Amino acid sequence: MLKAANEILSVLGADAVSFDEDVIEHHGRSDWSTSNTTVRPVAVVYPKTTEDVVAIAQSCNKHNVPIVPFGAGSSVEGNFSSPHSGICVDFTYMNRVIAFRPDDMDVTVQPGANWVDLNNKIAESGLFLPLDPSPTAQIGGMVATNCSGTNAMRYGTMKDWVVNLTVVLADGQVIKTRRRPRKTSAGYNLTSLFVGAEGTLGMVTEVTLKLAPIPQDTSVAIVSFPTIKEAATAASSIIRSGIQLAALEMMDDLQMHVVNRHGSAAVRKRKWLEEPTLFLKFSGTTDAIKSDIKRVGQLIKPHNPRDFIFAKSEQEKQDLWAARKEALFTMVNTRPEGTEIWSTDVAVPLSRLTDIIEVTKKDCSSLGLFASVIGHVGDANFHTAMFFDPKSAEQKAAVSKVVHDMMDRALEMEGTVSGEHAIGIGKKDSLVDELGVETINLMRSLKRAVDPKWIMNPGKVFDLPKGT
Amino acid sequence: MLKAANEILSVLGADAVSFDEDVIEHHGRSDWSTSNTTVRPVAVVYPKTTEDVVAIAQSCNKHNVPIVPFGAGSSVEGNFSSPHSGICVDFTYMNRVIAFRPDDMDVTVQPGANWVDLNNKIAESGLFLPLDPSPTAQIGGMVATNCSGTNAMRYGTMKDWVVNLTVVLADGQVIKTRRRPRKTSAGYNLTSLFVGAEGTLGMVTEVTLKLAPIPQDTSVAIVSFPTIKEAATAASSIIRSGIQLAALEMMDDLQMHVVNRHGSAAVRKRKWLEEPTLFLKFSGTTDAIKSDIKRVGQLIKPHNPRDFIFAKSEQEKQDLWAARKEALFTMVNTRPEGTEIWSTDVAVPLSRLTDIIEVTKKDCSSLGLFASVIGHVGDANFHTAMFFDPKSAEQKAAVSKVVHDMMDRALEMEGTVSGEHAIGIGKKDSLVDELGVETINLMRSLKRAVDPKWIMNPGKVFDLPKGT
Repeated sequence: MLKAANEILSVLGADAVSFDEDVIEHHGRSDWSTSNTTVRPVAVVYPKTTEDVVAIAQSCNKHNVPIVPFGAGSSVEGNFSSPHSGICVDFTYMNRVIAFRPDDMDVTVQPGANWVDLNNKIAESGLFLPLDPSPTAQIGGMVATNCSGTNAMRYGTMKDWVVNLTVVLADGQVIKTRRRPRKTSAGYNLTSLFVGAEGTLGMVTEVTLKLAPIPQDTSVAIVSFPTIKEAATAASSIIRSGIQLAALEMMDDLQMHVVNRHGSAAVRKRKWLEEPTLFLKFSGTTDAIKSDIKRVGQLIKPHNPRDFIFAKSEQEKQDLWAARKEALFTMVNTRPEGTEIWSTDVAVPLSRLTDIIEVTKKDCSSLGLFASVIGHVGDANFHTAMFFDPKSAEQKAAVSKVVHDMMDRALEMEGTVSGEHAIGIGKKDSLVDELGVETINLMRSLKRAVDPKWIMNPGKVFDLPKGT
Repeated sequence: MLKAANEILSVLGADAVSFDEDVIEHHGRSDWSTSNTTVRPVAVVYPKTTEDVVAIAQSCNKHNVPIVPFGAGSSVEGNFSSPHSGICVDFTYMNRVIAFRPDDMDVTVQPGANWVDLNNKIAESGLFLPLDPSPTAQIGGMVATNCSGTNAMRYGTMKDWVVNLTVVLADGQVIKTRRRPRKTSAGYNLTSLFVGAEGTLGMVTEVTLKLAPIPQDTSVAIVSFPTIKEAATAASSIIRSGIQLAALEMMDDLQMHVVNRHGSAAVRKRKWLEEPTLFLKFSGTTDAIKSDIKRVGQLIKPHNPRDFIFAKSEQEKQDLWAARKEALFTMVNTRPEGTEIWSTDVAVPLSRLTDIIEVTKKDCSSLGLFASVIGHVGDANFHTAMFFDPKSAEQKAAVSKVVHDMMDRALEMEGTVSGEHAIGIGKKDSLVDELGVETINLMRSLKRAVDPKWIMNPGKVFDLPKGT
């Protein structure tokens, strides 16, 4: 491994390779993750170009060294851990916008670009990338995990916005999955194979993304419900109506308590009911929004006596949405001393959303810990976030049971063990439960066809079959 | 091959296997296709269940016999030809709706189901599958070619509506790509790998599809332009505005001539201008449609002195849209005696649409044949349809040159040689031009990993590397 690292150093230069212990530690574990391992990479390398990445792959391929791509480091399932050590490839310095083409409504970027920066940079054109994951996320990681976030209800997930990818394969070959048409039926959909593959099939070095027109107007409203069941039922009826919200999110009573205590100054001017609450984002023309609001109001009425509360100013709108978006960060920053977070998500068919949220919320409440339910209910995907004392084996076991019961329940309902966090190390076993060994074996065959030495981010998504 | 056919006969019964010459001929070539081969399959088999398909695959695998899946037979690039003979698998009798779940907004069907029948069957629920290819198309073929049609501007293509697939692999193994969550980031996106693979990776035997709510209201309008350039420019400005039309189509002067002559009675009550014309479909709430129409009107004004003409009745709305939809059928049915059609399509980045349509239209006009341009301009995808005398080598060469120039031009513009007809036999060489041999080799590796004997629909999409 050190041979490979030194070979890379001789090509990329000393600045591009770090053996520093702190740097390696930072790239080996994360506070957000419940799937940290004890093993660390031997070095962290910083490519600047596709050619640099080719050199890295060639060295690692020659010496059979694991390659672990690293983006923002904000993933939660151990996606960038190094269980087999190896070389960690940090894309921080590959953060350029390579070409922005407003007339084609697309943009080509390097994987280290941050999506918020990108949207700020191109805002004047009236276009944006309508994904909405963690504000820290980088395009490369968003591709690797097929990320989504609050806008997925309207705009879909990352796979729906990637036009083409330039990928460096394990042996250093460079391929491009497509040219730049917005629509195509020409050959296998390699783009979608790499999106969500968690860096186990190659390293993405360029990404062309479709962009959407920024809506003329948006409006944010919240409405609270006596019980989580009623909130989820109301959400289902909105989805089923076909009214095209920009987003539909749910926060439970605990989350609303966090908003009241730790929200921004603008948000804390009001006192919010600490009850299960739907956050609705309307977008479109001002007229269309009015009409949507009226229809949603009629749909919610049977489930709820309470009225909508609308954000009154642009500032409140932004802050209110930020309160939802930053819930996880706020929780982590204000968590009880010495506790760790276990954050997870599942998704189910639409009709089962109410059932699974209701039972899971009950499970969370019975823990006697801070354990909260929060959801992208607009696409039947929701999260739990639980804090536990890592020194208490009992607490850890109890939290783990809630997580595994939630996944088992999702599978019984024909759902998935991961709606948007991908599999990483943390959910490998659950993926086998979800898809069956035959389907996993097909994935393995594909992996082996693309990465015969099994050096690309090994130990993630699935393992080598036993005995090999 | 006959051994395999007889083995299949012994398992599925005599009714399920045909050696009839006419039946084989019907499954071996098509009037729509420009890529017919002279070779025919030795038999056509008719499975009814996934188990039947498993038996077919096992026999063919044992005897190394090519398997060629057959749907409606309406594809145009030779996608169901049998260049290496083999067994043709006709999914006609696998046309059941297996489960319709309105509360989950999804449906599971067999691949032989026709999409129009499906939508009629479920219409009362207020849901529909929003794809819109040829009315004859079956779900299996729609999956195989990643089809789209006029609704793609708003609703995307087939890949965006497939939740999971049950697939019989070449060796008879059955895999399911997913459970039924609407959103997932769990493992490789096998669903998208099989969608658009043209039956070269396996036989799809069950398909779960997302459904969309039927819009409250729709409105159809047409507007003609002095030149095709102005029509295309106006189309681009509408797309760029973010106004969410249901569809945006273009017909050239020749197509409008066909509408005037051969349209339905309701449509022929008016005399349409025989000029390049945009067909616009608005959908949503009645209020939203009004607002969209106003905005589109403002956008078009600078490019055009003419007003919108709206369909005045439900009947006219349907007929007018049908005139667009059935353009190809009408042309084929009214074509000059003894001529054949060459129908093709490409897609390009948005900003290049006007250029490529303008030049291609000029090329078509210079042929002195019926040669027309027609487009799903809403996603920068367009078709040409040309009639030529197959006995005239000169005519055929001239038409072929127009097609190849159009593909080369699309590639120069970073577009694709196939927006929605897939590759089949007809565009294999062009696909290499489009993606390069490295990317094709990656597709080959994937194919070999899934179908090591290379028996699934061989000779389509790409060939075995030379010398193997």
